[in-house]
Amino acid sequence: MNQQLKQLVESLSPEWTAWRRDFHKYAESGWVEFRTASIVAEKLQEWGYVIQAGKEVIRDEARMGVPSAAFLAEQEKRALGQGARPEWLPVFSGGFTGVVGILDTGRPGPTIGFRVDMDALDIQESDEQDHLPAANGYVSINPGMMHACGHDAHTTIGLGLAQVLMAMKDQLKGRIKLIFQPAEEGVRGAKAMVEAGVLDDVDFFFSGHIGSGVPLGEVVCGARGYLATTKLDVTYKGYSSHAGGHPEDGKNALLAAASAALNLHSIPRHSQGSSRINVGVLQAGSGRNIVPGAAYLKVETRGATSDINEYMLERAIQIIKGAAVMHDVQESIEIVGMANSCDSSSELIPFIRSQAEKVEAVHAVRDFVVAGGSEDATYMLQRVQDNGGLASYLVIGTTLAAGHHNEKFDIDERVMEIAIQTYALCALHAGELPGWSGENTENGEK
Amino acid sequence: MNQQLKQLVESLSPEWTAWRRDFHKYAESGWVEFRTASIVAEKLQEWGYVIQAGKEVIRDEARMGVPSAAFLAEQEKRALGQGARPEWLPVFSGGFTGVVGILDTGRPGPTIGFRVDMDALDIQESDEQDHLPAANGYVSINPGMMHACGHDAHTTIGLGLAQVLMAMKDQLKGRIKLIFQPAEEGVRGAKAMVEAGVLDDVDFFFSGHIGSGVPLGEVVCGARGYLATTKLDVTYKGYSSHAGGHPEDGKNALLAAASAALNLHSIPRHSQGSSRINVGVLQAGSGRNIVPGAAYLKVETRGATSDINEYMLERAIQIIKGAAVMHDVQESIEIVGMANSCDSSSELIPFIRSQAEKVEAVHAVRDFVVAGGSEDATYMLQRVQDNGGLASYLVIGTTLAAGHHNEKFDIDERVMEIAIQTYALCALHAGELPGWSGENTENGEK
Amino acid sequence: MNQQLKQLVESLSPEWTAWRRDFHKYAESGWVEFRTASIVAEKLQEWGYVIQAGKEVIRDEARMGVPSAAFLAEQEKRALGQGARPEWLPVFSGGFTGVVGILDTGRPGPTIGFRVDMDALDIQESDEQDHLPAANGYVSINPGMMHACGHDAHTTIGLGLAQVLMAMKDQLKGRIKLIFQPAEEGVRGAKAMVEAGVLDDVDFFFSGHIGSGVPLGEVVCGARGYLATTKLDVTYKGYSSHAGGHPEDGKNALLAAASAALNLHSIPRHSQGSSRINVGVLQAGSGRNIVPGAAYLKVETRGATSDINEYMLERAIQIIKGAAVMHDVQESIEIVGMANSCDSSSELIPFIRSQAEKVEAVHAVRDFVVAGGSEDATYMLQRVQDNGGLASYLVIGTTLAAGHHNEKFDIDERVMEIAIQTYALCALHAGELPGWSGENTENGEK
Amino acid sequence: MNQQLKQLVESLSPEWTAWRRDFHKYAESGWVEFRTASIVAEKLQEWGYVIQAGKEVIRDEARMGVPSAAFLAEQEKRALGQGARPEWLPVFSGGFTGVVGILDTGRPGPTIGFRVDMDALDIQESDEQDHLPAANGYVSINPGMMHACGHDAHTTIGLGLAQVLMAMKDQLKGRIKLIFQPAEEGVRGAKAMVEAGVLDDVDFFFSGHIGSGVPLGEVVCGARGYLATTKLDVTYKGYSSHAGGHPEDGKNALLAAASAALNLHSIPRHSQGSSRINVGVLQAGSGRNIVPGAAYLKVETRGATSDINEYMLERAIQIIKGAAVMHDVQESIEIVGMANSCDSSSELIPFIRSQAEKVEAVHAVRDFVVAGGSEDATYMLQRVQDNGGLASYLVIGTTLAAGHHNEKFDIDERVMEIAIQTYALCALHAGELPGWSGENTENGEK
Repeated sequence: MNQQLKQLVESLSPEWTAWRRDFHKYAESGWVEFRTASIVAEKLQEWGYVIQAGKEVIRDEARMGVPSAAFLAEQEKRALGQGARPEWLPVFSGGFTGVVGILDTGRPGPTIGFRVDMDALDIQESDEQDHLPAANGYVSINPGMMHACGHDAHTTIGLGLAQVLMAMKDQLKGRIKLIFQPAEEGVRGAKAMVEAGVLDDVDFFFSGHIGSGVPLGEVVCGARGYLATTKLDVTYKGYSSHAGGHPEDGKNALLAAASAALNLHSIPRHSQGSSRINVGVLQAGSGRNIVPGAAYLKVETRGATSDINEYMLERAIQIIKGAAVMHDVQESIEIVGMANSCDSSSELIPFIRSQAEKVEAVHAVRDFVVAGGSEDATYMLQRVQDNGGLASYLVIGTTLAAGHHNEKFDIDERVMEIAIQTYALCALHAGELPGWSGENTENGEK
Repeated sequence: MNQQLKQLVESLSPEWTAWRRDFHKYAESGWVEFRTASIVAEKLQEWGYVIQAGKEVIRDEARMGVPSAAFLAEQEKRALGQGARPEWLPVFSGGFTGVVGILDTGRPGPTIGFRVDMDALDIQESDEQDHLPAANGYVSINPGMMHACGHDAHTTIGLGLAQVLMAMKDQLKGRIKLIFQPAEEGVRGAKAMVEAGVLDDVDFFFSGHIGSGVPLGEVVCGARGYLATTKLDVTYKGYSSHAGGHPEDGKNALLAAASAALNLHSIPRHSQGSSRINVGVLQAGSGRNIVPGAAYLKVETRGATSDINEYMLERAIQIIKGAAVMHDVQESIEIVGMANSCDSSSELIPFIRSQAEKVEAVHAVRDFVVAGGSEDATYMLQRVQDNGGLASYLVIGTTLAAGHHNEKFDIDERVMEIAIQTYALCALHAGELPGWSGENTENGEK
Repeated sequence: MNQQLKQLVESLSPEWTAWRRDFHKYAESGWVEFRTASIVAEKLQEWGYVIQAGKEVIRDEARMGVPSAAFLAEQEKRALGQGARPEWLPVFSGGFTGVVGILDTGRPGPTIGFRVDMDALDIQESDEQDHLPAANGYVSINPGMMHACGHDAHTTIGLGLAQVLMAMKDQLKGRIKLIFQPAEEGVRGAKAMVEAGVLDDVDFFFSGHIGSGVPLGEVVCGARGYLATTKLDVTYKGYSSHAGGHPEDGKNALLAAASAALNLHSIPRHSQGSSRINVGVLQAGSGRNIVPGAAYLKVETRGATSDINEYMLERAIQIIKGAAVMHDVQESIEIVGMANSCDSSSELIPFIRSQAEKVEAVHAVRDFVVAGGSEDATYMLQRVQDNGGLASYLVIGTTLAAGHHNEKFDIDERVMEIAIQTYALCALHAGELPGWSGENTENGEK
Repeated sequence: MNQQLKQLVESLSPEWTAWRRDFHKYAESGWVEFRTASIVAEKLQEWGYVIQAGKEVIRDEARMGVPSAAFLAEQEKRALGQGARPEWLPVFSGGFTGVVGILDTGRPGPTIGFRVDMDALDIQESDEQDHLPAANGYVSINPGMMHACGHDAHTTIGLGLAQVLMAMKDQLKGRIKLIFQPAEEGVRGAKAMVEAGVLDDVDFFFSGHIGSGVPLGEVVCGARGYLATTKLDVTYKGYSSHAGGHPEDGKNALLAAASAALNLHSIPRHSQGSSRINVGVLQAGSGRNIVPGAAYLKVETRGATSDINEYMLERAIQIIKGAAVMHDVQESIEIVGMANSCDSSSELIPFIRSQAEKVEAVHAVRDFVVAGGSEDATYMLQRVQDNGGLASYLVIGTTLAAGHHNEKFDIDERVMEIAIQTYALCALHAGELPGWSGENTENGEK
């Protein structure tokens, strides 16, 4: 079946490149993937997948870091103007931009879940001519939004996988669940899909990331050591006054924020493992000659373990509060994202290795890599593992023009073929999955 | 003539209120007063004034703090949609939003200049119901722009004065020059009008501000001690990296900016007089999990004398540069505004006092007040004084709902009648101006 | 009598130079002027003054910023080794180092008080050869203590004045009170003498400072605008831990102190008048590889008025507390010094001017100067003025080698002759004092 | 031979306790271990060791962080007054306080080196009664110096080992080299002994630390992951001025230091391994009312690898320099200590394990521990390993009253018996050392 797969991939590949560039051009950030999700839903349905979408797969109360209603509405309107499918938009309206496509073979076998993410970053993409998307005309046209992490390719991989599996469905067993998640950036979206129950019937789960320091042609079967993380929005409210006429009347929220930022970065390292802190955004003040009465920070803490992340969080909150006392301003702190630390299932690694090694373009396979960041797929891995299933997070290498989250981030698009083949082989060889023989008749037996 | 003036004012007053509220609703910030300036030009022309406008009265190279071409174009377009006069827009296009109206009586006499400013502030106006403009439906509909300093009233005062003087033109001598200046906030616009020569033929010059801590019914004849000031835009350019995966690769522009902000405010006081420093705006970073690669600050220094301001500026630049060294980022500093320290001409005070005392609603007149802020009308006062003329900056009291530059700033609109009468009397009684007898035949004699 | 005075001054002058250099060499800081005070007491007594000293003139509870008992004892012991008078030491023991010498003429007349201060600063004096005291062998031998403000000369002026007045006592009226105050630096000592009642019978009061930016040969009759001030000692107590092994266990008092210092200096200027803040000393941490568990700051606030100083103090306390919250450490704040804002009595200025003009070496007399610093003689001026008396604080010019409080501070010693003559003339011409005719028989009449 | 060893230890143990308490009482910090070193030299010589000491074992140019000549002289004088041996002092004068004792059996065999360190910390020891050394009268009498890390016990262990090995010398082979190192705190001394060649003939090397989180009765055979470290002294020189009178003239070194401290702690974590930064000491300013003209910081960086430490160091220097630019002060940076990252030789672990297990009081032996701090014995391990030898750094557990470097640090003294027995067994069983059979005749064969 590998040969058939290879031919399919070859013939479909140009289409995938076009899709990825289209998603890249119309980059949409977390919870406003209206255009992206509607295209995904339309295609999956067209190809014969059973679709679950919107509130069915996104639990409202578990969403984190959702933009304002006004922004959601404005973005939905923009998406419509940029080609979002009008028949699908109502389903996603209000920021419920998740899609799940299900292929039930009717034959006994496990439920295998694949998850990709769809959101862009809040970055202004470079328009310099040494940046390929700019030179070739698919640079993001949405100001301040850019696929600088590769989720455009992830979405495409999900769609390509859907095509390939549907084309080869006679060779599959059990059920396939393709999960298209919104709002991975800021680790805001996975929890809402997990709490909607999307993962509850999944026996084997695969997700992954392209790039991440691994070059094209290499595949890492399982990532370990994703950092636990908490995302905070901090607002300081002081009192504005005229900086020339009455400086003494002001309560300076900008200085509170600046003090907080400096001191947050000075939280001591933890001897028991990695920790991180970042004040990624600071916005303060309204005018040059006005003592700034308001300030806003986007902060995140991380830790190699949940305990270390908790330590960072406690210290951070202390500092944020102290800075408010200092400048006699009011602080408010909102938790807008969270992810666990979680590891891939060791038992699954040899299986993935054997599939990846079948892919011609793969010249090196590694078992494990230690992840440096956070990823809310960890919620999904954990849920599957908690239910007795196995789950792994792969890294599919691709050579990058500039690092993730850089304004000139760009990928070698051939990674999409490799990823699609690797995932497809995992589905096609379900019979080799650990603890699963072809004779098993139902999910319940695992 | 005072009686005639009083009746005129009574009859026109409702119209003025309407105009002020209209300007308030369509607040336009510095260099983008497209709608405001086009309405001013249209009305002045209609009433019979000779109009100078656009590049004729604004010297391009002397403009400071001009927004980007894109923003200018976008705002011009918006202005058109909000009622800007299409026939006037081309004159102002690109941010040359100054207007001068000239009334030449043909009779011998001095050239008397009056200057008002037209721009709003970059403040989001309060929409709470205890804020009158919100309760009464003329809250600013332009997001992030608000007349929180009273320039809507200033513009209206200029227009009302134009009406009144034209109506009483038979009682005037010499020439009247009504100067409508853009971009006073940030002290960016006056210099460009001065360098275009607008003040060069002015013998007596009056400008002023409403409010400023003086209650309704009081007039201050001359402000002293305006602070010299310099406005700086600072940009830090570092390097973004993933805050979880590769924090060590980042060059943190946000921390440079935060350090700069804190240390700027710590510049020592000067023993020889007042000094000020304000970081009014700080914007840094693009995403929560990205080490911030860019930051932007709006800064201003002030001093009781130009020397003290120079001292503050030198220290500020040193700190801005040191913060860049600290975090290994590149800094750039742009001067976007400047004003002198300048005093009103003492010789003019008794004349102004005698006119102000004729206004029925004025119950107290003070000679001088010490100003706490900066004001670029000082460029105009200075130019007139340098040419041997006399100039004064008045304060026309009005009781405020909240201080200048506050999101709930609001005025007692009756101040407009007082201001118009006071200014009109100064023009109507030109014969009493110091060093000017009715017998003088030409400007040259001053 | 001026001629006699002049001859006296000429003959005594070499002795004064020797005394000043001796005091300079054995510099003693506030509350430990054991050697200095004992020499003063011995000489005054020898010359025939009635002596009040120690607890008689220093109210214990009103002392501020008194060193530890251990330090006091150690310094007293050192003083003994350096020539302090053993018979006087018990009087001053424990830091009651004030002396008052009284000369009662028995003739009707006012009580005239003169006050000088005796303490050195906590500065390590320069031993470079371009510093005269070092080159000439009278550099301070007490480590970390230096007469860098001229109180060695002040003490000498007090003694010289005592000599001269005693020599000319037949020409005096009323009573003379010579007040030798400890601990002026840090404005710690005056209040304790005032509260001991030392000023309660004084009708006319003179104190003053040499130098202060006024060159040799000039005398300023009255200083105005002394800044109100408060002196604070701040201690942060955190928790030490090994910086390599367990950084996360530490509570970093050094970072709390550093944050406090930066933010204290950022307290906004006050629009109503001068304000000051200084963190003069910061000491934190015990070892390089230990997370600092303790920190200590010496802070002072000032204001042109007591209200402005109060504003600075409130903001400072807020910041100090906020920094403690930030780093989860305990703060303690102790007030260790205070002075008022106070002005010289205008009525006294013409009298002082007329005396100063009689001094040959004086070539310029100014009525007033605006002081930039603080001075606790203000407590004494205030008490005398509150009782209906008149008081002034003079500045007797002297050209300085380096500014006050610099490690190379040095004076032109001729200032002592000028000061002594000026003060002596004020006493000798008591009959010319405002509101005081020779006929008055009692203090009560003022 | 174990039995004989055990009896020796039992009989000598009380003496050891006395020595340790004596060293504790007369704590001497790095490079001024005059008393300690002279006692060590005297005893070793008395017992028959060949002594190398002073400049013979300390290379002058490789010493780091040596105190001033004045302090060295003052401390040497104090040591003499506290019982230092006068005949030995000249050898150590000037801070060459290292001693090596050599025992050559004359029999073939390896050269085995043992190293202990002798210096105390700059900590003021607690005198509270719940602190045993205070309650029992051997609290440090040297102000600001305290054995808060256990080097008093280390020195005693070295001496006890010397006694035991000399007593059992007939059962030894090859040569024993006992190395008593000064100035381990601040990692300042080891490099100078290595560069003097002390380690060049050592085939097997053992050093170790007591405590370090390991309880009494446990021995760890080899420490891994000592952090590379660099120690920096930073001085800022600005300009002092009167904080009330002329604040604008000052160049504030305290604010430069505070800014540096805050920003140093904000150096980003490194994704490739542990990093550390500590500003352990900050001292700035001379008086409350003086703008601080000088500041001093003790800083250290660390890294899991030398590259990471280098990264921290480069960033630190950048920040230190930037802070100087900010406040227009001059900075100077001096490297005063350094240590490598280094691991114990794996091949040696089983040998050490087998010896430690013979010690009765040892109930648990672990192979490895990951160290959290730095240690300059790493220079010695590295030199021995570079020469083809084997080296290990042990941890000999002891239960602590308070953590290392705390003012109430105290040990369970029984650890000394365990350490001496373990080390002695390592020497006595030299024949079992890896790659070393009794037949080998010379070092050269290894």
